[in-house]
Amino acid sequence: NGHAMVVQRKSCWYEEEIEENLRWCFALNSILHTGATQYQDIQLLDTKPFGKALVIDGKLQSAEIDEFIYHESLVHPALLHHQLPKTIFIMGGGEGSTARELLRHRSVEKVVMCDIDEPVVVRGRAELQRKEECYDVIIGDLADPIEGGPCYQLYTKTFYELTVKPRLNQGGIFVTQAGPAGVFSHTEVFSCIYNTLKQVFKYVVPYSAHIPSYADIWGWVMASDTPFLLNADELDLRMKQRIKGENRYLDGKTFTSASTLSKAVRKSLDSETHVYSEGAARFIYGHGTAHKHNQG
Amino acid sequence: NGHAMVVQRKSCWYEEEIEENLRWCFALNSILHTGATQYQDIQLLDTKPFGKALVIDGKLQSAEIDEFIYHESLVHPALLHHQLPKTIFIMGGGEGSTARELLRHRSVEKVVMCDIDEPVVVRGRAELQRKEECYDVIIGDLADPIEGGPCYQLYTKTFYELTVKPRLNQGGIFVTQAGPAGVFSHTEVFSCIYNTLKQVFKYVVPYSAHIPSYADIWGWVMASDTPFLLNADELDLRMKQRIKGENRYLDGKTFTSASTLSKAVRKSLDSETHVYSEGAARFIYGHGTAHKHNQG
Amino acid sequence: NGHAMVVQRKSCWYEEEIEENLRWCFALNSILHTGATQYQDIQLLDTKPFGKALVIDGKLQSAEIDEFIYHESLVHPALLHHQLPKTIFIMGGGEGSTARELLRHRSVEKVVMCDIDEPVVVRGRAELQRKEECYDVIIGDLADPIEGGPCYQLYTKTFYELTVKPRLNQGGIFVTQAGPAGVFSHTEVFSCIYNTLKQVFKYVVPYSAHIPSYADIWGWVMASDTPFLLNADELDLRMKQRIKGENRYLDGKTFTSASTLSKAVRKSLDSETHVYSEGAARFIYGHGTAHKHNQG
Amino acid sequence: NGHAMVVQRKSCWYEEEIEENLRWCFALNSILHTGATQYQDIQLLDTKPFGKALVIDGKLQSAEIDEFIYHESLVHPALLHHQLPKTIFIMGGGEGSTARELLRHRSVEKVVMCDIDEPVVVRGRAELQRKEECYDVIIGDLADPIEGGPCYQLYTKTFYELTVKPRLNQGGIFVTQAGPAGVFSHTEVFSCIYNTLKQVFKYVVPYSAHIPSYADIWGWVMASDTPFLLNADELDLRMKQRIKGENRYLDGKTFTSASTLSKAVRKSLDSETHVYSEGAARFIYGHGTAHKHNQG
Repeated sequence: NGHAMVVQRKSCWYEEEIEENLRWCFALNSILHTGATQYQDIQLLDTKPFGKALVIDGKLQSAEIDEFIYHESLVHPALLHHQLPKTIFIMGGGEGSTARELLRHRSVEKVVMCDIDEPVVVRGRAELQRKEECYDVIIGDLADPIEGGPCYQLYTKTFYELTVKPRLNQGGIFVTQAGPAGVFSHTEVFSCIYNTLKQVFKYVVPYSAHIPSYADIWGWVMASDTPFLLNADELDLRMKQRIKGENRYLDGKTFTSASTLSKAVRKSLDSETHVYSEGAARFIYGHGTAHKHNQG
Repeated sequence: NGHAMVVQRKSCWYEEEIEENLRWCFALNSILHTGATQYQDIQLLDTKPFGKALVIDGKLQSAEIDEFIYHESLVHPALLHHQLPKTIFIMGGGEGSTARELLRHRSVEKVVMCDIDEPVVVRGRAELQRKEECYDVIIGDLADPIEGGPCYQLYTKTFYELTVKPRLNQGGIFVTQAGPAGVFSHTEVFSCIYNTLKQVFKYVVPYSAHIPSYADIWGWVMASDTPFLLNADELDLRMKQRIKGENRYLDGKTFTSASTLSKAVRKSLDSETHVYSEGAARFIYGHGTAHKHNQG
Repeated sequence: NGHAMVVQRKSCWYEEEIEENLRWCFALNSILHTGATQYQDIQLLDTKPFGKALVIDGKLQSAEIDEFIYHESLVHPALLHHQLPKTIFIMGGGEGSTARELLRHRSVEKVVMCDIDEPVVVRGRAELQRKEECYDVIIGDLADPIEGGPCYQLYTKTFYELTVKPRLNQGGIFVTQAGPAGVFSHTEVFSCIYNTLKQVFKYVVPYSAHIPSYADIWGWVMASDTPFLLNADELDLRMKQRIKGENRYLDGKTFTSASTLSKAVRKSLDSETHVYSEGAARFIYGHGTAHKHNQG
Repeated sequence: NGHAMVVQRKSCWYEEEIEENLRWCFALNSILHTGATQYQDIQLLDTKPFGKALVIDGKLQSAEIDEFIYHESLVHPALLHHQLPKTIFIMGGGEGSTARELLRHRSVEKVVMCDIDEPVVVRGRAELQRKEECYDVIIGDLADPIEGGPCYQLYTKTFYELTVKPRLNQGGIFVTQAGPAGVFSHTEVFSCIYNTLKQVFKYVVPYSAHIPSYADIWGWVMASDTPFLLNADELDLRMKQRIKGENRYLDGKTFTSASTLSKAVRKSLDSETHVYSEGAARFIYGHGTAHKHNQG
């Protein structure tokens, strides 16, 4: 009462329609860049609540102050569970932070990354198919599997079976970002990605974390034909031994918690039956032309 | 491409400033009620993404489609960890859903609830102090401890020490909602509530869950002088034995995960030093008049 | 300074995209009605700045506190300039306020109105074509002539020539609402309606007025084969003699000002060459199917 | 239908609360500058609907594509009505466009301008009081007379009487911007400025024009002890003789229309009784400290 403060309302805003009926808005410091490539519209914004933010086709991809949650969660569980990860393939990852986390692992000798100055679809596939090489860990850091979107094929059972799995070394691990994983939003793609990977790999671990700038829980799925056996303490030990510097978000307990999904999500994953596949009608094989993709 | 659909944009919106630089907006079906009591402005909205929603003083309190996450998390962990909870006191809880969850417990014989047709502050305190009675579980379902707000006193060390703890029966448990618990937002009140309760009780368990309509992780803290010893399976067994009907969100594993906080939050809780107290300057004792409270 | 007042921000808003890059938002008291007919989506809102407001297909049609500006401007200039208006035909006008203004004229004996429980296009046309009758004044109170919209045909040269003009009695006057008439926005439809009517009638008078709830100047065009000769004082005299009650917005001087357009708009109307016509490709004659129309 | 186009929604917006219940939002290309002087917050935005726009303390001041309406209306009527305007004093006008319009007049020999790297209040007053000089035209291009705002004194009867009028040469004219002049909004300040000037000058002419980026009609008032006698044709003739280049908005007819207010506004101006004065309580004379001013 005595110290009422009249805060000047913010007048410049970034506004995202998370879904048709739901908006998420950040006050803006400035618009650093607006542009378009052949495949997507790109904006680099300086936002007040989340720092610098990359927006592609009207969807927030990554924000300065909390991207560490996404990237630590994407990279470290798979690499830590691997016996000794030396060679890594990243599908996507153009922003660079996935590579940054990988290179903190002392064991890593080689990182191959494939992103989109050519379209993700064509290149990613081509690279993996063309090369003789196999990898210890393959990481999927791609846009969500929207039908008609540029990345849909890279989430199908066929792709996992014929392209990803054959390029994993013995004991190799595949991990992919897997879209929203909230108590309601996990049915969009998370449960299907999980179920599709279950058709192809013996051991599949879904896990999730809240990312403030996304206004939601996010999901990842890790898969292998070798079991995932480490407990929280063993993960912590490997982190200490293998990773340079210290994680901000992830440690053994965090992963234990992240990979223990809530009852609601667990039940729904268990009962998921949909498997991603490339129906002939949906996808002209090897054609890979660039549709302007709308992730929403 | 072929089946482009022109969706009519929604034109009526509820807009909440979560913080000065951050907005969260729901498309509206209708405005069911707008009113004001002596102490607060109240709106009941019918929103498209979250169903019916209660808004007090411009802040979303509870939404139809996800209130079960909040109320299952507030009520069941404390009651399940208790040996045989018969008598329960709720501070706040006016919306009724806390009582609904309590009454699903077969052991519960008596629920006393104290909310705000008189101001929460005065009544809640008066009730607990006046009565001779003690309770097995006391539940804090109150607005956040904003200084100058109507509930601030009910989160102080003094209040916990002199009012709450003496009214707990042997083996009794206190649990309170504890504000936002996200990787950044937990420093607002969650870590202080945790630290304040640690000054008063021997065993204190913080836990959290994502609530979609809040656009954040939410926190609760459970406290007792009796240790919390149940594992996930034991919790599941007690649920089966004691609770009528089935939980939608919470089970043993969910609680295990919920009470295993991420590294970032754990570190920050461990290093919290602030203890809520009623500094003479901050609070005129026994005065308890109703300020129009702004929870933001 | 001393009496700083913390106004609670409004949380429920109606939001209209006037154009793709421009929004106009009203705080809401309530949403009185939401519905859809076969032809359009309808909302009746109670707004804080403009009172009750009718919204069709996401576009504000009429607001309680300033509809008098629109309806006085639509009705009175034509009726006052007429020698003795007895019979009136309204195309559109479903909201009722046009008829209300007409019935204030002592001379008016008959008002025929045609609106949209059947589609405007079919009925309006059918009525005028079927009936033998002629009218002293015909009033166009229709949605703007958007191509593909339901009212497009009712703004074409052919329609004016073959349907409207033959149904005017000797000395008859046609007047139509004519869309936005601002210094930039008049090029959308106002200048074309003006130019189209100039092809058909000897005397054509465009005029305009600011309507606060539209966030723009609005235009009307009045046309006849009899000249419009009254000055401000003569209009005032006729108003006194002929109209029951008193106008709030329009009098002789107001009309003089309203029909004296700014240099920018006048130049642009003079140089307009487009004439609305029903290109075969655009319109299947007599078919009148109901497209869901988007006025924007 | 055939050519449905999915327009990507705009994601960056400037949002202005015109009043508490009314917002006006422009899509943004970029934020060119954000800063603060001792007296005000300044933003220079590049907006999609109105081009570059200057925003001071959260209020749009001037937009690239329609500032010519404001500045032509402010400057030319007064200069054209003057017998031979040679010396001009501008209070305010920092943006430069007022001077630009003045310098198009062949007769103008001297323009003195006073704006705000020192506060408007102090400097404007000081300049006019200190100088011996008189002027043919004095132009008020200042923020609205909000009580407590920095410009309030410059709209009072005392100021007009003791400071402005004595500095006008024989036949001199004073003109000032006079705030919103819409059918409702003219009661905010327009009618009071008009009424205040009527106390001081023999001849006072209020006039108005719609400015799209303001979402409202704007008003100006012109005052003198010499009558304003020119008709539209005489104004056009003087424009041709005196002004270099061609106006975009204003000519003789436009001014005739602009100075013929609607019935609603005329009635309200005629019955206005409030006169701006510097009540002792409101204003500490000569003190001129810089409050952070809120124009809204």
